[in-house]
Amino acid sequence: MSLVIRVGPARADWWLAHMRALLPEIECRPWDDPGDLDAVRYAVVWKPPAGGLKRFPNLELIVSIGAGIDHILADPERPADVPIVRTTSGELTQRMREYVLLHVLRLHRDLPAIEAAQKSAEWRQVVTPPAPGRTVGVMGLGNLGADAARALAAVGFAVRGWSRSPKSVAGVETFAGEAGLDAFLAGTDILVCLLPLTDATRGILDARLFAKLPEGASIINAARGEHLVEADLIAALDAGHIRYATLDVFHEEPLPPGHPFWRHPRVYVTPHVASLIDPVAGGEIIAANIRRFIAGEPIPDLVDLSKGY
Amino acid sequence: MSLVIRVGPARADWWLAHMRALLPEIECRPWDDPGDLDAVRYAVVWKPPAGGLKRFPNLELIVSIGAGIDHILADPERPADVPIVRTTSGELTQRMREYVLLHVLRLHRDLPAIEAAQKSAEWRQVVTPPAPGRTVGVMGLGNLGADAARALAAVGFAVRGWSRSPKSVAGVETFAGEAGLDAFLAGTDILVCLLPLTDATRGILDARLFAKLPEGASIINAARGEHLVEADLIAALDAGHIRYATLDVFHEEPLPPGHPFWRHPRVYVTPHVASLIDPVAGGEIIAANIRRFIAGEPIPDLVDLSKGY
Repeated sequence: MSLVIRVGPARADWWLAHMRALLPEIECRPWDDPGDLDAVRYAVVWKPPAGGLKRFPNLELIVSIGAGIDHILADPERPADVPIVRTTSGELTQRMREYVLLHVLRLHRDLPAIEAAQKSAEWRQVVTPPAPGRTVGVMGLGNLGADAARALAAVGFAVRGWSRSPKSVAGVETFAGEAGLDAFLAGTDILVCLLPLTDATRGILDARLFAKLPEGASIINAARGEHLVEADLIAALDAGHIRYATLDVFHEEPLPPGHPFWRHPRVYVTPHVASLIDPVAGGEIIAANIRRFIAGEPIPDLVDLSKGY
Repeated sequence: MSLVIRVGPARADWWLAHMRALLPEIECRPWDDPGDLDAVRYAVVWKPPAGGLKRFPNLELIVSIGAGIDHILADPERPADVPIVRTTSGELTQRMREYVLLHVLRLHRDLPAIEAAQKSAEWRQVVTPPAPGRTVGVMGLGNLGADAARALAAVGFAVRGWSRSPKSVAGVETFAGEAGLDAFLAGTDILVCLLPLTDATRGILDARLFAKLPEGASIINAARGEHLVEADLIAALDAGHIRYATLDVFHEEPLPPGHPFWRHPRVYVTPHVASLIDPVAGGEIIAANIRRFIAGEPIPDLVDLSKGY
């Protein structure tokens, strides 16, 4: 009985040692040197390459190192009957709350204008409306989205939320489905994307959606790079219809040095740090979930594969 | 019976017209052309020059265009028996809450490092502890300070507060007086100054105080420029003991173009915008308070001059 682990190359050795210390009763091996393929029961993975998981005929559980599982579903040869567990923690929610509040407030109070004035040593007061006069629209009302929406409302913003199926969040005006999308967008000054990545949400942040936002709206994407049609965003920024974009996720990560987002004066790039899993705490959560699985106990973060996220 | 109004030159005409529209029953005149000095009963002022208020022998009420009254008390010839009313509103609290949350989060998530990486198109993940691992210390627990402290605690920060006399704020560890200051400072990672300006707090942010903060602490001053000994801050920044400073207020405003704060790589300058009074809403509040005074009704924002702020 063994476990294989696959993470980015920078931290592979560290993670392997970490999981070995946390699960001494299980043989933990690196993805590229799995030993006896028949012995592998558990795969702990981030962005496994296509065809990699089907190497293990007796695989019982796939663990995503992260809250999203799109990076696993992206493998068309994935053994579709093997259950998947996501890794979440209160810390992920905490960090995302911080990121969303920070970047909404940064745009709300127009720090780009404040910073331009400082650069030229110019005393130029920028007066913005108080938060109740600004509407923030949160797309995606899962754990992270609902928490961020509540936190924005507590600060004083007018907050609305959109989700695939109808949801209710205290203090938040909610909209649902294709039928509710246009009305949701029409009143949104700052749009925050926290959607799961599915076939229905891939490319949802496109020219058609931007056109339905009011002139001068801004967007923040802290979900997945594939939600955004990058060329459409650049066109909407350059046309002046979208004022600012704050992006944490990209089609290609790391974002290539020559990518236009790095240099665009109205794009703020953060390097996928909105809600990082702390590897120490995250490893402990993963080990606890694997032990629950072995003991046949319920795992709250088991994915419902019928929903696709 | 007349009213004189004094504001900065940029908006003097606008304010005069605004007050005339709001108080048509009172003759409203500019500070520099007050007409019959004996007729002046009310003075609505921001930073009145020394000796200016004593020109009016029948003055009954001084209204500060702002929550602070230090700019009035700074006049040594002020008629000391004339009551002062400050101008506050829920909007001031709202705006200060936004400013404090934004700038604490900005330092907490180390946006200066994120921005340096973007400038060089470099994908460099900055991992910061989640907010419960960061202690924010708020100096001053009046309306604005207590609200900001509560809002920081709601985001998840460990929050402590310091005030002259003991106060209690839900979710905030409080310290008081000279006796509590050292312990308050010793555990503070990000210090937020929202103190009133009095003889006891003038220059409180000095080398002695900075030395009591932990190595690498940051400070935010959104109270008054005179709280800060500017040369001491620059020395503490250059020594590396203080990491970042975010300053909204200055000894001289507008901050002169040659001032070193404008160009210091670890000083973030905002041009006294933390909590601006909206002139429309603020004018309405001032007019309502003057009407209350004339009618002999209680005015909640009447200053208790025995406390000096």
